[in-house]
Amino acid sequence: MNPLHLLFEGTVTTPLGFTAVAVAAGLKKENQLDLALVVSENECSCAAMFTKNQVVAAPVIVDRETLAQNNSRLRAVVINSKNANACTGEPGLANARATQQIAATALGCVPNQILVLSTGVIGVQLPMDKLEAGIIDGALELSRDNGRLAAEAIMTTDTHPKHLAVNVDLPDGPVFIGGMAKGAGMIHPNMATMLAVLTTDAAIAPDVLDGLLKTAVNQSFNRISIDGDTSTNDTIFLLANGASGTAVTDPDCIQKFSAALNQLCTALAQMIVRDGEGATKFVEIQVTGTQSDADAHQIANTIAISPLVKTAFAGSDANWGRLLMAAGRAGVAFDQTKINLWIGVQQANELQLVANGTPTGYQEADAAAVFAEPEFKILLDLGSGGGGTAVVWTTDLSHDYVSINADYRT
Amino acid sequence: MNPLHLLFEGTVTTPLGFTAVAVAAGLKKENQLDLALVVSENECSCAAMFTKNQVVAAPVIVDRETLAQNNSRLRAVVINSKNANACTGEPGLANARATQQIAATALGCVPNQILVLSTGVIGVQLPMDKLEAGIIDGALELSRDNGRLAAEAIMTTDTHPKHLAVNVDLPDGPVFIGGMAKGAGMIHPNMATMLAVLTTDAAIAPDVLDGLLKTAVNQSFNRISIDGDTSTNDTIFLLANGASGTAVTDPDCIQKFSAALNQLCTALAQMIVRDGEGATKFVEIQVTGTQSDADAHQIANTIAISPLVKTAFAGSDANWGRLLMAAGRAGVAFDQTKINLWIGVQQANELQLVANGTPTGYQEADAAAVFAEPEFKILLDLGSGGGGTAVVWTTDLSHDYVSINADYRT
Repeated sequence: MNPLHLLFEGTVTTPLGFTAVAVAAGLKKENQLDLALVVSENECSCAAMFTKNQVVAAPVIVDRETLAQNNSRLRAVVINSKNANACTGEPGLANARATQQIAATALGCVPNQILVLSTGVIGVQLPMDKLEAGIIDGALELSRDNGRLAAEAIMTTDTHPKHLAVNVDLPDGPVFIGGMAKGAGMIHPNMATMLAVLTTDAAIAPDVLDGLLKTAVNQSFNRISIDGDTSTNDTIFLLANGASGTAVTDPDCIQKFSAALNQLCTALAQMIVRDGEGATKFVEIQVTGTQSDADAHQIANTIAISPLVKTAFAGSDANWGRLLMAAGRAGVAFDQTKINLWIGVQQANELQLVANGTPTGYQEADAAAVFAEPEFKILLDLGSGGGGTAVVWTTDLSHDYVSINADYRT
Repeated sequence: MNPLHLLFEGTVTTPLGFTAVAVAAGLKKENQLDLALVVSENECSCAAMFTKNQVVAAPVIVDRETLAQNNSRLRAVVINSKNANACTGEPGLANARATQQIAATALGCVPNQILVLSTGVIGVQLPMDKLEAGIIDGALELSRDNGRLAAEAIMTTDTHPKHLAVNVDLPDGPVFIGGMAKGAGMIHPNMATMLAVLTTDAAIAPDVLDGLLKTAVNQSFNRISIDGDTSTNDTIFLLANGASGTAVTDPDCIQKFSAALNQLCTALAQMIVRDGEGATKFVEIQVTGTQSDADAHQIANTIAISPLVKTAFAGSDANWGRLLMAAGRAGVAFDQTKINLWIGVQQANELQLVANGTPTGYQEADAAAVFAEPEFKILLDLGSGGGGTAVVWTTDLSHDYVSINADYRT
């Protein structure tokens, strides 16, 4: 039913009417890019999702307020990647609002048309003089050619920029969706230290856009886990400026657009996992045979964040007992005598390790060969007779993860 | 009110009427100790607590059945430290029951007077021939002098044996409580891969013993966290054989005994944390100002298992933003503008880092000096106006943790 949408290496400026700029504003050392602006010529509808952490950064508070007033006439997103502006109290909120004011003046609009994003160190006030100069300079250099540089400017411990685009052929004409994301650490369902900006030149009403974004995030960014931590700053925006002249209104168009958006978000989410801090493995965990999808998701997540599972991945050790141990502490009741477990490289069900809770007569060398691959899949069936399923993607816990995070601020 | 009980380096054989033996039964390589028996001359009352994991090892299933039939005439505990006998299906259950039969024959009692404990690799069947020979040989060498060796024989990745005893002066005469524990990895509240055997020569009815053990474990073993994983095998036994001739029945005696038991369990639990896999830090996390103790415990635990917090500990980096981030994802609602955070070496409240959600003007060098210590304390007050409090003890996440767990089976 879903047409195959073709992803390509586009950016947030692939959709018509969007420009961007990347600036070395001096927040980071050595002239590194640390500030990005994504700007639309036209006013945009906007859908947003934010971290569920109780401790939220100033930009999250300010953006929620802004979108409550205005979710249909947005003009730009301002992102810095050095300073999270989190745990900064009233001065931090004032700085986030001042950032809106500075950008609005530079772009010729009003402050509640500007969204702000921050990522980086917590508990330090933004250097507003540097940020102001960077925004003013940047606003003069906006271009459709800067999409890739913008994706580079939002990186923290990411090792490469993450951006993609997709073309959707609708009956009334083609539209594009572009996106960029940053991730790397503190990644967990509910979109941990992840920032993503998605743009489209389709015209879509805010309430429709909300539903489309929720569906896409639930299948993508909420299915990835690197370390189980969730950040104070996670945010994803989907901006629709209508510059293509094509509106997404009827159910068929919405369905086609939704499929493309899901594909784009899944690809960006998987890029974040593959570039997880210190990651040497990309592991897909499928859980089936639970009473509900939520139960399956809970079990898959618990496996994905288990340090003992993740260190076994790092060691290429097919120590499947740890998978069952982690499943068993997920808080979901099941009968251990009905567990079946398979692993595989191309398909998850290539080699069965456990049948009805008991090890099969598999050869250790065969299991070790799967875990030695940089990418492999795990299929755990709980055998409850229910139809619950879930898939999550995760990484190993390596020496480099410890090094990166023990020394992050130095 | 509580008399100060004096802990000393006693063992499970310090209380009268208990003997033990440690055997190199050939389950581990190179003639290492891998089997322990703890035996009482008299029949014992027994209280037990088990893992809350849904996936439980065969000995957990068999011990639950055994104690349901008989909790007042126990004679011995048989422990191996190489093979967890978990995820081993019906053959594993049969092997656990056969172990009871072998020990009962060797000790001249019946199988439901024997408890069995296993820890080690999951998913492999026990080598029953070696285990049988070890039990039969060991039963001939039981001695009051072997308490320390028994604590050594139950170690897996522990770097040293953990045993203590305490003397309780009751009006009717003195009694002793002895204990040994193993821990190291997969430690989390609910007593993750932890085995502990506690013995006393007091006479205590099984229902009283149950209450005493629950109270003690809730204040000790359920307050420690190394990696957030919980094992399939966690078990703690408290055996009371009455050999001292002193009964613990009236409320005053029970209160005195309880205080001593709590002190013993807290000390053993802290020994487990200090010997956590790869641990270089011992950190006490105090949480106050929540609506309930359960909320405080939930927040303290979430901080204790956060990989980003634990790697910051490993790097001696006073990156307190991660503490707040972890608190915020604990699933407990609070107002971030009311957070206060202190750290200290002797006392938790020596240096305030955050006041009302905003960084204080503390000096980074002062904070770094605290985090550079091998032991320090953290006090997080959520400022809800409620009286909830909790304390947990945890470690850092170091390179050695990754090395130990990536290569555990090799």
